Amino acid sequence: MLKKYLLAPGPTPVPPEALAAMSMPMIHHRAPDFIPIFEAARAGLKNLYQTTSDVLMLCSTGTGGMVAAVTNFFNHGDKAIVVNGGKFGERWIKICQSFKLEVIEIKVKWGYTLNPSQLEEVLKNNSGVKGVFVQATETSTGVNHDIEAIAAVVKKHSDALLVVDAISSLVAHDLKTDAWGIDIMVGGSQKGLMLPPGLALISVSERAWKMAETSKIEKFYFNLKTERKKQQDNQTNFTSAVTLIIGLNESLKIIQNEGLDNVFKRHALLAHATREAVKAIGMGLYAKEMPSNAVTAIEAPAGVDGQKIYKILRERYGVTAAGGQDEAKGKIFRIAHLGYSDRFDIITAIAAIEMTLKTLGAPVTLGKGVAACEEILA
Amino acid sequence: MLKKYLLAPGPTPVPPEALAAMSMPMIHHRAPDFIPIFEAARAGLKNLYQTTSDVLMLCSTGTGGMVAAVTNFFNHGDKAIVVNGGKFGERWIKICQSFKLEVIEIKVKWGYTLNPSQLEEVLKNNSGVKGVFVQATETSTGVNHDIEAIAAVVKKHSDALLVVDAISSLVAHDLKTDAWGIDIMVGGSQKGLMLPPGLALISVSERAWKMAETSKIEKFYFNLKTERKKQQDNQTNFTSAVTLIIGLNESLKIIQNEGLDNVFKRHALLAHATREAVKAIGMGLYAKEMPSNAVTAIEAPAGVDGQKIYKILRERYGVTAAGGQDEAKGKIFRIAHLGYSDRFDIITAIAAIEMTLKTLGAPVTLGKGVAACEEILA
Repeated sequence: MLKKYLLAPGPTPVPPEALAAMSMPMIHHRAPDFIPIFEAARAGLKNLYQTTSDVLMLCSTGTGGMVAAVTNFFNHGDKAIVVNGGKFGERWIKICQSFKLEVIEIKVKWGYTLNPSQLEEVLKNNSGVKGVFVQATETSTGVNHDIEAIAAVVKKHSDALLVVDAISSLVAHDLKTDAWGIDIMVGGSQKGLMLPPGLALISVSERAWKMAETSKIEKFYFNLKTERKKQQDNQTNFTSAVTLIIGLNESLKIIQNEGLDNVFKRHALLAHATREAVKAIGMGLYAKEMPSNAVTAIEAPAGVDGQKIYKILRERYGVTAAGGQDEAKGKIFRIAHLGYSDRFDIITAIAAIEMTLKTLGAPVTLGKGVAACEEILA
Repeated sequence: MLKKYLLAPGPTPVPPEALAAMSMPMIHHRAPDFIPIFEAARAGLKNLYQTTSDVLMLCSTGTGGMVAAVTNFFNHGDKAIVVNGGKFGERWIKICQSFKLEVIEIKVKWGYTLNPSQLEEVLKNNSGVKGVFVQATETSTGVNHDIEAIAAVVKKHSDALLVVDAISSLVAHDLKTDAWGIDIMVGGSQKGLMLPPGLALISVSERAWKMAETSKIEKFYFNLKTERKKQQDNQTNFTSAVTLIIGLNESLKIIQNEGLDNVFKRHALLAHATREAVKAIGMGLYAKEMPSNAVTAIEAPAGVDGQKIYKILRERYGVTAAGGQDEAKGKIFRIAHLGYSDRFDIITAIAAIEMTLKTLGAPVTLGKGVAACEEILA
């Protein structure tokens, strides 16, 4: 018997309450029993997003939400600043270019965070910027961008919409949509919300809705104006992702019961313990600045292939982590502490890493990382 | 206690095998344990679609698949014939127009099927038609269009791609993708495939792939060329709808075990029994021609509001049917016999209808419809 532990940055484990609710007999999305479920999910999402605006639910992965963020508020030729510090920064660029926005790229070295003053500079040098696109957590590097500071800079120097990919960050980090002025924020079901993939979430500010009036990019499935109208009536425009919305309701209840601040604190604590344990083992953090509380990217020890660590973690210890992508491939592996995650998930991860290094013949003092964890988590 | 019976044309009930499989702990879409599941689903879909081409899986509702069918193979200004015999014919028109195709509408009276010779006429009068869009089952009216005959007409008179919305028809009807020459066929998870909503399926012929090379409509999330490349490697381009694909594998196994021909025969038998029972009760069928084996649209008796029947079926008898839409609203209600459906689901439906008519004070001989069912189903 090899028990399985899912510690990748999405999909993440689904809590039994949500699994049980999603295993109930199917119900119809236009029938009265679905209305209160939808209504409760809408309210819970507003609470989680810290916004009075609607948070729309779309039946797609998070990337569908990112596409909706580009196609509903902009036009061909619109200037868009994209912060690119990893795979998902690149995705913003690709989406913007697919719909013919004029991309002004701010390249951030992998493992580093955007310096808000660099954004300030670019905003000063480019008039008429319509949107600023950024990740809250860049999942490929485990680095956060400072959304609060970025929002302040964007407001100060432009009328641009601030569009945040919070897919991996949501639930792990305190993101104050209204207070900071995030215009569009995209989330996904399979991360901090502890659900299977298939639901994208998107909040839209009043300023953004105004820009939607003049957006001419062709769209149909991700038409947010139509969705908003329908969802305010507790319906979706097309068939609802019934099961996921039922599960979402359970996840949101779990989050509300713990309390948003406690949820953020738990993620901060688990991430802190992970980082300290990694250092105690003698490994480096790939995030040189602003490490995320959702996922930790760990540098493989000198001479050890990060993909091998991933492989042995999985095959020998039953722990599914994530490898590195593109330029980080082989150099790192990634451990999530996101969503349905507590102390013993971290201890499991660290113990598995220690044993994996031993298996690989890399220098390691068994138990040293776990001890560092326990010190913090006790 | 009021037991619930879901007899609407999607979402349909999920079999326990699929529910159980989907309730297993989450796995990662890029990890090796997902590969054989994805591979088996791909093979099962080819079998169901009766094609050697790839059937791609998209994380969206069926409408997302319809959008993919329009945006990947056509261009602005392309002439598209759309058969419009109900709500979903209208949806083809709206999608085509959203992406600036030139729509040539063939309006079919609700409750009737397309006469293929009418299509022949339109094809003769319009040169350079690039696509013909049609429903296999028009869910809003319970009518089928004769895809085999339509395909023959399209091939005879044009090079147009035949694009079939088989969302409600798939599994209920024998649709021979390759043998008939269906270029693009869209399915969805929440109908005959007996799964929750959230997965669209789309087959693409080699002719259609050739047209994809010159399609310039902007797309990103539903980029089928990229998807095809990835899915041939048993991956999806973005996060996979892991849970639904696991469930799909179970559904496909159930279908394969019963045998495709037996599945079609079962749907034909259940639909036949439903129609005969409806007539025995003294009600009319809304489908005047080619009734679907997926869903039966039933005319409310004179003086009885169809929406009232829907309401009493639900509230008093626990049976969720579907009402009528738009011009059929109040005139009809609809009962599905689709997917995880057997004899006693039909008997339940008919018994509930008889009792509902009694409740409403409409003339009915209790048991007469059920007797007609039993005669056929014994």
